[in-house]
Amino acid sequence: MNEHTSRRDFIRAAGHGFLAAGAMNMLTSTVLAQDQPAATTKKLGWAIVGLGQLALTQVMPAFKNCQRSRAAALVSGHPDKADRVAGENGVDPKHVYDYENYDKLKDDPNVDVVYNILPDSMHAEYTIRALRAGKHVLCEKPMAMNVKECEQMCAAAKETGKKLMVAYRLHYEPFTMAARDAARGGKLGPIRYFEAVNYQNVRAPNIRLSRSTGTGPLGDVGVYCINAARYILGEEPIEATGMDYQPKDDERFKEVPARVTFQLKFPSGAIASCGCGFDGQPARRFRAVCENGAIEMDNAFGYGGQKLRVIEGRQSNEAQLQPINHFTREMDYFSECVTSDRQPETPGEEGLADMKVIAAVEEACRTRRTTKL
Amino acid sequence: MNEHTSRRDFIRAAGHGFLAAGAMNMLTSTVLAQDQPAATTKKLGWAIVGLGQLALTQVMPAFKNCQRSRAAALVSGHPDKADRVAGENGVDPKHVYDYENYDKLKDDPNVDVVYNILPDSMHAEYTIRALRAGKHVLCEKPMAMNVKECEQMCAAAKETGKKLMVAYRLHYEPFTMAARDAARGGKLGPIRYFEAVNYQNVRAPNIRLSRSTGTGPLGDVGVYCINAARYILGEEPIEATGMDYQPKDDERFKEVPARVTFQLKFPSGAIASCGCGFDGQPARRFRAVCENGAIEMDNAFGYGGQKLRVIEGRQSNEAQLQPINHFTREMDYFSECVTSDRQPETPGEEGLADMKVIAAVEEACRTRRTTKL
Repeated sequence: MNEHTSRRDFIRAAGHGFLAAGAMNMLTSTVLAQDQPAATTKKLGWAIVGLGQLALTQVMPAFKNCQRSRAAALVSGHPDKADRVAGENGVDPKHVYDYENYDKLKDDPNVDVVYNILPDSMHAEYTIRALRAGKHVLCEKPMAMNVKECEQMCAAAKETGKKLMVAYRLHYEPFTMAARDAARGGKLGPIRYFEAVNYQNVRAPNIRLSRSTGTGPLGDVGVYCINAARYILGEEPIEATGMDYQPKDDERFKEVPARVTFQLKFPSGAIASCGCGFDGQPARRFRAVCENGAIEMDNAFGYGGQKLRVIEGRQSNEAQLQPINHFTREMDYFSECVTSDRQPETPGEEGLADMKVIAAVEEACRTRRTTKL
Repeated sequence: MNEHTSRRDFIRAAGHGFLAAGAMNMLTSTVLAQDQPAATTKKLGWAIVGLGQLALTQVMPAFKNCQRSRAAALVSGHPDKADRVAGENGVDPKHVYDYENYDKLKDDPNVDVVYNILPDSMHAEYTIRALRAGKHVLCEKPMAMNVKECEQMCAAAKETGKKLMVAYRLHYEPFTMAARDAARGGKLGPIRYFEAVNYQNVRAPNIRLSRSTGTGPLGDVGVYCINAARYILGEEPIEATGMDYQPKDDERFKEVPARVTFQLKFPSGAIASCGCGFDGQPARRFRAVCENGAIEMDNAFGYGGQKLRVIEGRQSNEAQLQPINHFTREMDYFSECVTSDRQPETPGEEGLADMKVIAAVEEACRTRRTTKL
């Protein structure tokens, strides 16, 4: 199996949302191939929009090993920072934009894809403007502030014929894919109970503590629990309950709750029980109790360090997989989708589906009733 | 510190529901002392009521190392089985009773304590009759079928002046006590989120699958999650949400749901998220996300095998404690309470408190509303 075939097969498998038995070996060889010298394939030009923590510490360095993607432009409201980052990453200063001249991206043939890493409140507008400028867009999650914005973004992608992908990097990450394969492979039997937690300790000041720029803990970190439940179960929830808590004696939580917990019922009868928050020791994991086994993922939502244990009857096995750089993989995957005109596995509709769950949980918290989805 | 002092101090500490710093070492030495030859203290006579699986495989063998408790009588509806068990355990056949002559226990000075290990539906009646026969009672959990029965049992204890303890063996078990001490010790900060799961795979036929004799998964295994949440948090819940699922295609679940999940909010704002069921791979654990740390208990609810990890900042420590026999400890503890006329840490009111939560969760499932407690 040569490198090209293996990657093509992997992408096809991922596109179908399913890796066949044995595909994990194939995936691993693909992953290893990532560190090989770049293939002759043309690299697509990416514009990075929003030079915050995630862009600087994860995304920009991840281009180094990309085979299909290169940093081609930057968009920032801080010219000094943008120039510095451009210099450090070999981006020609004439491809540095700000939010005033952002729409000029339309006339920059150097840019194929826009990666929207702005605060949640700027996802919809800057994604739609990029699509209308003729660019494909990878947008960070949560996709937007509410369901309506997500729908507008999906409509804009349809209207412009450009691709829109939401940055669910874990769908393209081997440990999470292996967890999904274990869940759906049949040997463990159906999932009965799924639990996920994503907790962080957020220090003020932080834009995530503002309701005007962000979606609070439910959108910001809870979305990982929601997406993991839907991804691992392979079903869409039909009901939600929720509880939240906004302390009166903690200045960080004037606008958003400190924690939100919720339960989701799925058509199979599986129930997911999740918790997320901004005021505790970091914790990110999920567990699935199956009929004849269990799936346990530690550090489930980190940029790396996933640890997967699959329990089948009395056998317990820790997955031995080669870790990858999530951002390198995700960007190259989207470039490949654009090049081969293939719909990504996590299009706008995937972000919309999570946002509908977020809205249902918020309604359940507010009305104190089980909410139908 | 001699053996007697250390045990007395431990019992006093446990009676206050709190082990002071350093008490764990004391506890450990008490535990080790358990395997020493019996002290000169008089052993109380116990009548074991109900010779099912738990009585035969756990309780009867646990008398071997008891220092304050001995098997003095048996109550069973199966004379052959009762005679055999009496023979195997050195119980004089004249102290074997059935459910017809049960009240004659009153005239048996050989019996001080009755241990009610009957099906849930027989807890109230046979506990109240034993109290009225002048015996102290240790009753298995869940305490009864509903709140009203629990209240009647508490009233009977008060009326007769006899002691009633509910068999929350984990309150007397060093790993669980250490988890509670870690939670309340201050170093980890307040608990933000607590999750617990207790899952079993129950094969038919089984009385636990009947609503007339049992309380379904919520009462049978979910009570462990509820009690752990209340014990570790040291608070009483104020609100509950719930979801249950009763499959139509599984013959086991004609009368009880296959699974029940629920969330409980506490006055501190901590939320507990729990799941229990009868149709999955066994799973029993709890986790607490604290402000500055975490508590992780694996095999939390088993008869042994507890594994406790306490995470404080970046430090993670597995508790190194001497395991004990839960039943030996529990019975000797209750004998000590009776002898020294001390209220046990888990009196009838503790079982009643859990039953109120069970009722609130059932109401939340039924009404699809957040229920106040």
